[in-house]
Amino acid sequence: MEFDELVKKRRSIHYFTDKEVSDDDLLYVLEAARWAPSAGNNQPWRFVIIRKPESIEKIWETTTDIEVPISSKRTIKVTPQNFMKQAPVVIVVCTDTQAYKGKQNSIFADRFCIQDSAIATMNLLLAVANRGLGACWIGMYREDALSKVLNLPATIQPVAIVPIGHTQSKEQPRPRKPLNELVHYESYQSN
Amino acid sequence: MEFDELVKKRRSIHYFTDKEVSDDDLLYVLEAARWAPSAGNNQPWRFVIIRKPESIEKIWETTTDIEVPISSKRTIKVTPQNFMKQAPVVIVVCTDTQAYKGKQNSIFADRFCIQDSAIATMNLLLAVANRGLGACWIGMYREDALSKVLNLPATIQPVAIVPIGHTQSKEQPRPRKPLNELVHYESYQSN
Repeated sequence: MEFDELVKKRRSIHYFTDKEVSDDDLLYVLEAARWAPSAGNNQPWRFVIIRKPESIEKIWETTTDIEVPISSKRTIKVTPQNFMKQAPVVIVVCTDTQAYKGKQNSIFADRFCIQDSAIATMNLLLAVANRGLGACWIGMYREDALSKVLNLPATIQPVAIVPIGHTQSKEQPRPRKPLNELVHYESYQSN
Repeated sequence: MEFDELVKKRRSIHYFTDKEVSDDDLLYVLEAARWAPSAGNNQPWRFVIIRKPESIEKIWETTTDIEVPISSKRTIKVTPQNFMKQAPVVIVVCTDTQAYKGKQNSIFADRFCIQDSAIATMNLLLAVANRGLGACWIGMYREDALSKVLNLPATIQPVAIVPIGHTQSKEQPRPRKPLNELVHYESYQSN
Protein backbone atom coordinates (compact mmCIF):
# COMPACT_ATOMS: atom_id res chain seq x y z
CA MET A 1 0.00 0.00 0.00
CA GLU A 2 1.09 3.60 -0.54
CA PHE A 3 2.65 4.95 2.64
CA ASP A 4 0.24 7.94 2.77
CA GLU A 5 -2.75 5.65 2.84
CA LEU A 6 -1.17 3.10 5.17
CA VAL A 7 -0.16 5.56 7.86
CA LYS A 8 -3.77 6.75 8.24
CA LYS A 9 -5.43 3.35 7.88
CA ARG A 10 -3.32 1.52 10.47
CA ARG A 11 -5.01 1.28 13.83
CA SER A 12 -4.76 -0.78 17.00
CA ILE A 13 -6.67 -4.05 16.67
CA HIS A 14 -8.18 -5.84 19.65
CA TYR A 15 -10.01 -8.71 17.95
CA PHE A 16 -8.34 -11.63 16.23
CA THR A 17 -9.68 -14.63 14.35
CA ASP A 18 -8.38 -18.18 14.85
CA LYS A 19 -6.36 -18.13 11.62
CA GLU A 20 -2.64 -18.68 12.05
CA VAL A 21 -0.11 -16.00 11.14
CA SER A 22 2.32 -17.56 8.66
CA ASP A 23 6.08 -17.61 9.08
CA ASP A 24 6.24 -15.61 5.86
CA ASP A 25 4.07 -12.88 7.40
CA LEU A 26 6.25 -12.80 10.50
CA LEU A 27 9.40 -12.55 8.42
CA TYR A 28 7.85 -9.70 6.48
CA VAL A 29 6.98 -7.62 9.57
CA LEU A 30 10.34 -8.27 11.25
CA GLU A 31 12.12 -7.27 8.05
CA ALA A 32 10.41 -3.87 8.16
CA ALA A 33 11.33 -3.49 11.83
CA ARG A 34 15.03 -4.10 11.31
CA TRP A 35 15.22 -1.31 8.70
CA ALA A 36 14.41 1.36 11.28
CA PRO A 37 17.17 3.87 11.94
CA SER A 38 19.04 3.85 15.26
CA ALA A 39 21.64 6.04 16.91
CA GLY A 40 24.96 5.23 15.22
CA ASN A 41 23.18 2.33 13.48
CA ASN A 42 23.53 0.35 16.72
CA GLN A 43 20.28 -1.61 16.23
CA PRO A 44 19.61 -2.48 19.88
CA TRP A 45 16.22 -4.07 19.08
CA ARG A 46 15.61 -7.75 19.77
CA PHE A 47 12.44 -9.74 19.13
CA VAL A 48 10.99 -12.72 20.93
CA ILE A 49 8.31 -14.57 18.96
CA ILE A 50 5.82 -16.53 21.03
CA ARG A 51 3.32 -18.94 19.51
CA LYS A 52 2.68 -21.48 22.28
CA PRO A 53 -0.72 -20.68 23.83
CA GLU A 54 0.54 -21.51 27.32
CA SER A 55 3.38 -19.00 26.88
CA ILE A 56 1.01 -16.34 25.55
CA GLU A 57 -1.14 -16.97 28.63
CA LYS A 58 1.91 -16.36 30.83
CA ILE A 59 2.70 -13.13 29.00
CA TRP A 60 -0.91 -12.04 29.44
CA GLU A 61 -0.58 -12.69 33.18
CA THR A 62 2.16 -10.04 33.36
CA THR A 63 -0.43 -7.45 32.26
CA THR A 64 -2.65 -8.32 35.25
CA ASP A 65 -2.48 -7.17 38.88
CA ILE A 66 -0.95 -3.81 38.08
CA GLU A 67 -1.94 -1.27 40.67
CA VAL A 68 -1.60 2.44 39.96
CA PRO A 69 -1.97 5.20 42.53
CA ILE A 70 -3.89 7.97 40.76
CA SER A 71 -4.12 10.26 43.78
CA SER A 72 -2.97 10.25 47.40
CA LYS A 73 -6.19 8.46 48.33
CA ARG A 74 -7.01 6.27 45.37
CA THR A 75 -5.35 3.29 43.72
CA ILE A 76 -6.81 1.61 40.67
CA LYS A 77 -6.11 -1.71 39.01
CA VAL A 78 -5.12 -1.55 35.34
CA THR A 79 -7.52 -3.36 32.98
CA PRO A 80 -5.79 -6.58 31.82
CA GLN A 81 -5.36 -6.97 28.07
CA ASN A 82 -7.55 -10.06 27.69
CA PHE A 83 -7.76 -9.87 23.89
CA MET A 84 -4.08 -10.82 23.80
CA LYS A 85 -5.04 -14.41 24.54
CA GLN A 86 -6.88 -14.65 21.19
CA ALA A 87 -3.74 -13.82 19.21
CA PRO A 88 -2.01 -16.72 17.44
CA VAL A 89 1.35 -15.03 17.86
CA VAL A 90 2.87 -12.40 20.12
CA ILE A 91 6.09 -10.52 19.46
CA VAL A 92 7.79 -9.03 22.49
CA VAL A 93 10.10 -6.24 21.38
CA CYS A 94 13.13 -5.84 23.61
CA THR A 95 16.16 -3.58 23.71
CA ASP A 96 19.79 -4.36 24.48
CA THR A 97 20.61 -1.90 27.27
CA GLN A 98 24.34 -2.42 26.67
CA ALA A 99 24.27 -1.52 22.98
CA TYR A 100 25.79 1.94 23.55
CA LYS A 101 28.32 0.98 26.21
CA GLY A 102 31.75 2.55 25.65
CA LYS A 103 30.53 4.61 22.67
CA GLN A 104 30.48 8.39 22.28
CA ASN A 105 26.71 8.44 22.70
CA SER A 106 26.75 6.28 25.85
CA ILE A 107 25.39 9.03 28.13
CA PHE A 108 22.22 9.01 26.04
CA ALA A 109 21.92 5.21 26.05
CA ASP A 110 18.78 4.97 28.19
CA ARG A 111 16.81 7.23 25.87
CA PHE A 112 18.31 5.80 22.67
CA CYS A 113 17.54 2.20 23.65
CA ILE A 114 13.88 3.08 24.22
CA GLN A 115 13.60 5.29 21.11
CA ASP A 116 15.33 2.88 18.75
CA SER A 117 13.25 -0.10 19.80
CA ALA A 118 10.08 2.01 19.67
CA ILE A 119 10.65 3.09 16.08
CA ALA A 120 11.45 -0.47 15.01
CA THR A 121 8.06 -1.35 16.54
CA MET A 122 6.41 1.45 14.55
CA ASN A 123 7.78 0.02 11.30
CA LEU A 124 6.57 -3.40 12.42
CA LEU A 125 3.04 -2.10 13.07
CA LEU A 126 2.90 -0.44 9.66
CA ALA A 127 4.07 -3.69 8.07
CA VAL A 128 1.38 -5.63 9.96
CA ALA A 129 -1.30 -3.29 8.61
CA ASN A 130 0.18 -3.41 5.12
CA ARG A 131 -0.13 -7.19 5.18
CA GLY A 132 -3.81 -6.95 6.10
CA LEU A 133 -3.15 -8.23 9.63
CA GLY A 134 -3.97 -6.59 12.94
CA ALA A 135 -1.82 -5.78 15.97
CA CYS A 136 -1.84 -3.72 19.11
CA TRP A 137 1.04 -2.26 21.11
CA ILE A 138 0.68 -3.23 24.75
CA GLY A 139 2.85 -1.17 27.06
CA MET A 140 1.47 -1.98 30.49
CA TYR A 141 3.03 -5.07 32.02
CA ARG A 142 5.00 -6.05 35.08
CA GLU A 143 8.50 -5.81 33.65
CA ASP A 144 10.25 -8.20 36.03
CA ALA A 145 7.57 -10.83 35.53
CA LEU A 146 7.69 -10.46 31.74
CA SER A 147 11.50 -10.72 31.73
CA LYS A 148 11.21 -13.93 33.74
CA VAL A 149 8.60 -15.46 31.40
CA LEU A 150 10.85 -14.77 28.40
CA ASN A 151 14.02 -15.77 30.24
CA LEU A 152 15.66 -12.47 29.32
CA PRO A 153 19.28 -11.82 30.29
CA ALA A 154 19.68 -8.93 32.77
CA THR A 155 20.92 -6.67 29.96
CA ILE A 156 17.81 -7.13 27.79
CA GLN A 157 14.74 -5.03 28.64
CA PRO A 158 11.24 -5.68 27.26
CA VAL A 159 9.70 -2.54 25.76
CA ALA A 160 6.52 -3.61 23.96
CA ILE A 161 4.19 -6.61 23.74
CA VAL A 162 2.66 -6.90 20.26
CA PRO A 163 -0.06 -9.53 19.71
CA ILE A 164 -0.62 -10.10 15.98
CA GLY A 165 -3.39 -11.89 14.16
CA HIS A 166 -5.86 -11.90 11.33
CA THR A 167 -8.87 -9.78 12.09
CA GLN A 168 -12.34 -8.95 10.87
CA SER A 169 -12.45 -5.80 12.94
CA LYS A 170 -14.13 -2.91 11.11
CA GLU A 171 -13.02 -0.31 13.65
CA GLN A 172 -12.01 2.99 12.16
CA PRO A 173 -8.85 4.85 13.21
CA ARG A 174 -9.39 6.98 16.31
CA PRO A 175 -9.41 10.76 15.93
CA ARG A 176 -6.20 12.73 16.25
CA LYS A 177 -5.51 16.19 17.62
CA PRO A 178 -5.38 18.83 14.88
CA LEU A 179 -1.93 20.11 13.95
CA ASN A 180 -2.63 23.57 15.36
CA GLU A 181 -2.68 22.03 18.86
CA LEU A 182 0.66 20.30 18.27
CA VAL A 183 2.81 22.65 16.23
CA HIS A 184 4.75 25.73 17.33
CA TYR A 185 6.83 28.04 15.19
CA GLU A 186 10.35 29.21 16.05
CA SER A 187 9.66 29.04 19.80
CA TYR A 188 7.30 26.99 21.95
CA GLN A 189 5.91 30.00 23.77
CA SER A 190 6.49 33.71 23.48
CA ASN A 191 9.01 35.19 25.86
CA MET B 1 5.78 5.06 -2.63
CA GLU B 2 4.87 1.54 -1.55
CA PHE B 3 5.65 1.08 2.14
CA ASP B 4 7.87 -1.98 1.48
CA GLU B 5 10.11 0.01 -0.81
CA LEU B 6 10.06 3.15 1.34
CA VAL B 7 11.07 1.47 4.58
CA LYS B 8 14.25 0.12 2.97
CA LYS B 9 15.09 3.20 0.92
CA ARG B 10 14.84 5.73 3.75
CA ARG B 11 18.18 6.60 5.25
CA SER B 12 19.71 9.36 7.36
CA ILE B 13 20.78 12.29 5.19
CA HIS B 14 23.65 14.61 6.17
CA TYR B 15 23.85 16.86 3.10
CA PHE B 16 21.25 19.44 2.11
CA THR B 17 20.94 21.81 -0.83
CA ASP B 18 19.92 25.46 -0.47
CA LYS B 19 16.40 24.82 -1.73
CA GLU B 20 13.64 25.74 0.72
CA VAL B 21 11.29 23.14 2.15
CA SER B 22 7.76 24.27 1.35
CA ASP B 23 5.00 24.70 3.92
CA ASP B 24 3.10 22.04 2.02
CA ASP B 25 5.97 19.58 2.51
CA LEU B 26 6.10 20.39 6.22
CA LEU B 27 2.36 19.91 6.58
CA TYR B 28 2.67 16.57 4.81
CA VAL B 29 5.37 15.20 7.13
CA LEU B 30 3.65 16.48 10.29
CA GLU B 31 0.40 14.92 9.14
CA ALA B 32 2.09 11.50 8.97
CA ALA B 33 3.60 12.07 12.43
CA ARG B 34 0.30 12.81 14.11
CA TRP B 35 -1.22 9.53 12.88
CA ALA B 36 1.18 7.49 14.98
CA PRO B 37 -0.42 5.41 17.72
CA SER B 38 0.10 6.35 21.37
CA ALA B 39 -0.81 4.80 24.71
CA GLY B 40 -4.52 5.46 25.22
CA ASN B 41 -4.38 7.72 22.16
CA ASN B 42 -2.87 10.43 24.38
CA GLN B 43 -0.75 11.95 21.60
CA PRO B 44 1.92 13.60 23.80
CA TRP B 45 4.01 14.69 20.78
CA ARG B 46 4.61 18.35 20.11
CA PHE B 47 6.60 19.89 17.25
CA VAL B 48 8.60 23.09 17.06
CA ILE B 49 9.40 24.22 13.52
CA ILE B 50 12.48 26.40 13.16
CA ARG B 51 13.36 28.20 9.94
CA LYS B 52 15.35 31.24 11.09
CA PRO B 53 19.05 30.56 10.40
CA GLU B 54 20.07 32.25 13.66
CA SER B 55 17.73 29.97 15.60
CA ILE B 56 19.04 26.90 13.77
CA GLU B 57 22.56 28.04 14.72
CA LYS B 58 21.49 28.19 18.37
CA ILE B 59 20.03 24.71 18.17
CA TRP B 60 23.25 23.46 16.60
CA GLU B 61 25.18 24.97 19.50
CA THR B 62 23.30 22.67 21.90
CA THR B 63 24.93 19.70 20.09
CA THR B 64 28.40 21.05 20.86
CA ASP B 65 30.55 20.79 23.99
CA ILE B 66 29.11 17.47 25.08
CA GLU B 67 31.66 15.51 27.05
CA VAL B 68 31.25 11.80 27.57
CA PRO B 69 33.30 9.65 29.95
CA ILE B 70 34.00 6.42 28.06
CA SER B 71 36.17 4.87 30.77
CA SER B 72 37.42 5.78 34.22
CA LYS B 73 40.41 7.51 32.62
CA ARG B 74 39.11 8.90 29.36
CA THR B 75 36.57 11.53 28.40
CA ILE B 76 35.75 12.34 24.79
CA LYS B 77 33.93 15.24 23.19
CA VAL B 78 30.96 14.32 20.99
CA THR B 79 31.31 15.34 17.33
CA PRO B 80 28.99 18.32 16.76
CA GLN B 81 26.36 17.89 14.05
CA ASN B 82 27.62 20.62 11.71
CA PHE B 83 25.52 19.56 8.73
CA MET B 84 22.46 20.73 10.65
CA LYS B 85 23.39 24.31 9.81
CA GLN B 86 22.82 23.63 6.08
CA ALA B 87 19.21 22.61 6.65
CA PRO B 88 16.54 25.15 5.67
CA VAL B 89 14.25 23.87 8.40
CA VAL B 90 14.60 21.96 11.65
CA ILE B 91 11.80 20.23 13.50
CA VAL B 92 12.37 19.61 17.19
CA VAL B 93 10.10 16.84 18.37
CA CYS B 94 9.05 17.20 22.00
CA THR B 95 6.88 15.28 24.43
CA ASP B 96 4.39 16.49 27.00
CA THR B 97 5.61 14.82 30.19
CA GLN B 98 2.24 15.47 31.87
CA ALA B 99 0.16 13.74 29.20
CA TYR B 100 -0.44 10.63 31.34
CA LYS B 101 -0.92 12.36 34.69
CA GLY B 102 -3.87 10.99 36.67
CA LYS B 103 -4.54 8.20 34.14
CA GLN B 104 -4.43 4.45 34.68
CA ASN B 105 -1.19 4.20 32.75
CA SER B 106 0.52 7.03 34.69
CA ILE B 107 3.18 4.78 36.25
CA PHE B 108 4.46 4.07 32.73
CA ALA B 109 4.40 7.74 31.68
CA ASP B 110 8.17 8.22 31.37
CA ARG B 111 8.51 5.33 28.93
CA PHE B 112 5.29 6.11 27.07
CA CYS B 113 6.20 9.77 26.51
CA ILE B 114 9.54 8.76 24.94
CA GLN B 115 8.07 5.87 22.93
CA ASP B 116 5.07 7.81 21.59
CA SER B 117 7.14 10.78 20.47
CA ALA B 118 9.74 8.45 18.95
CA ILE B 119 7.22 6.62 16.80
CA ALA B 120 5.65 9.89 15.63
CA THR B 121 9.19 10.82 14.57
CA MET B 122 9.53 7.52 12.70
CA ASN B 123 6.38 8.26 10.71
CA LEU B 124 7.74 11.74 10.04
CA LEU B 125 11.04 10.35 8.73
CA LEU B 126 9.23 7.94 6.41
CA ALA B 127 7.09 10.82 5.14
CA VAL B 128 10.21 12.93 4.53
CA ALA B 129 11.72 10.14 2.42
CA ASN B 130 8.44 9.56 0.61
CA ARG B 131 8.43 13.22 -0.40
CA GLY B 132 11.93 12.91 -1.85
CA LEU B 133 13.42 15.01 0.95
CA GLY B 134 16.19 14.13 3.38
CA ALA B 135 16.38 14.22 7.17
CA CYS B 136 18.45 12.94 10.04
CA TRP B 137 17.45 12.20 13.63
CA ILE B 138 19.85 13.96 15.98
CA GLY B 139 19.66 12.67 19.54
CA MET B 140 22.78 14.13 21.14
CA TYR B 141 22.20 17.60 22.55
CA ARG B 142 22.40 19.41 25.86
CA GLU B 143 18.78 19.12 26.90
CA ASP B 144 18.63 22.13 29.22
CA ALA B 145 20.25 24.36 26.62
CA LEU B 146 17.91 23.14 23.88
CA SER B 147 14.86 23.67 26.10
CA LYS B 148 16.04 27.23 26.72
CA VAL B 149 16.58 27.99 23.02
CA LEU B 150 13.05 26.80 22.24
CA ASN B 151 11.55 28.42 25.31
CA LEU B 152 9.97 25.14 26.35
CA PRO B 153 7.73 25.03 29.43
CA ALA B 154 9.10 22.84 32.23
CA THR B 155 6.60 20.10 31.34
CA ILE B 156 7.75 19.79 27.72
CA GLN B 157 10.85 17.70 26.99
CA PRO B 158 12.75 17.74 23.68
CA VAL B 159 13.34 14.23 22.34
CA ALA B 160 14.71 14.60 18.80
CA ILE B 161 16.19 17.26 16.54
CA VAL B 162 15.30 16.64 12.89
CA PRO B 163 16.92 18.85 10.23
CA ILE B 164 15.09 18.50 6.91
CA GLY B 165 16.05 19.60 3.43
CA HIS B 166 16.31 18.75 -0.22
CA THR B 167 19.32 16.63 -0.94
CA GLN B 168 21.42 15.27 -3.76
CA SER B 169 23.00 12.68 -1.52
CA LYS B 170 23.48 9.34 -3.26
CA GLU B 171 24.33 7.51 -0.06
CA GLN B 172 22.89 4.03 0.17
CA PRO B 173 21.15 2.71 3.29
CA ARG B 174 23.60 1.32 5.84
CA PRO B 175 23.68 -2.43 6.40
CA ARG B 176 21.47 -4.02 9.02
CA LYS B 177 22.00 -6.99 11.29
CA PRO B 178 20.46 -10.18 9.88
CA LEU B 179 17.27 -11.38 11.54
CA ASN B 180 18.94 -14.47 12.99
CA GLU B 181 20.96 -12.16 15.28
CA LEU B 182 17.81 -10.37 16.43
CA VAL B 183 15.06 -12.95 16.71
CA HIS B 184 14.43 -15.53 19.42
CA TYR B 185 11.66 -18.11 19.57
CA GLU B 186 9.48 -18.77 22.62
CA SER B 187 12.25 -17.78 25.03
CA TYR B 188 15.27 -15.48 24.77
CA GLN B 189 17.70 -18.09 26.05
CA SER B 190 17.35 -21.70 27.02
CA ASN B 191 16.90 -22.41 30.70
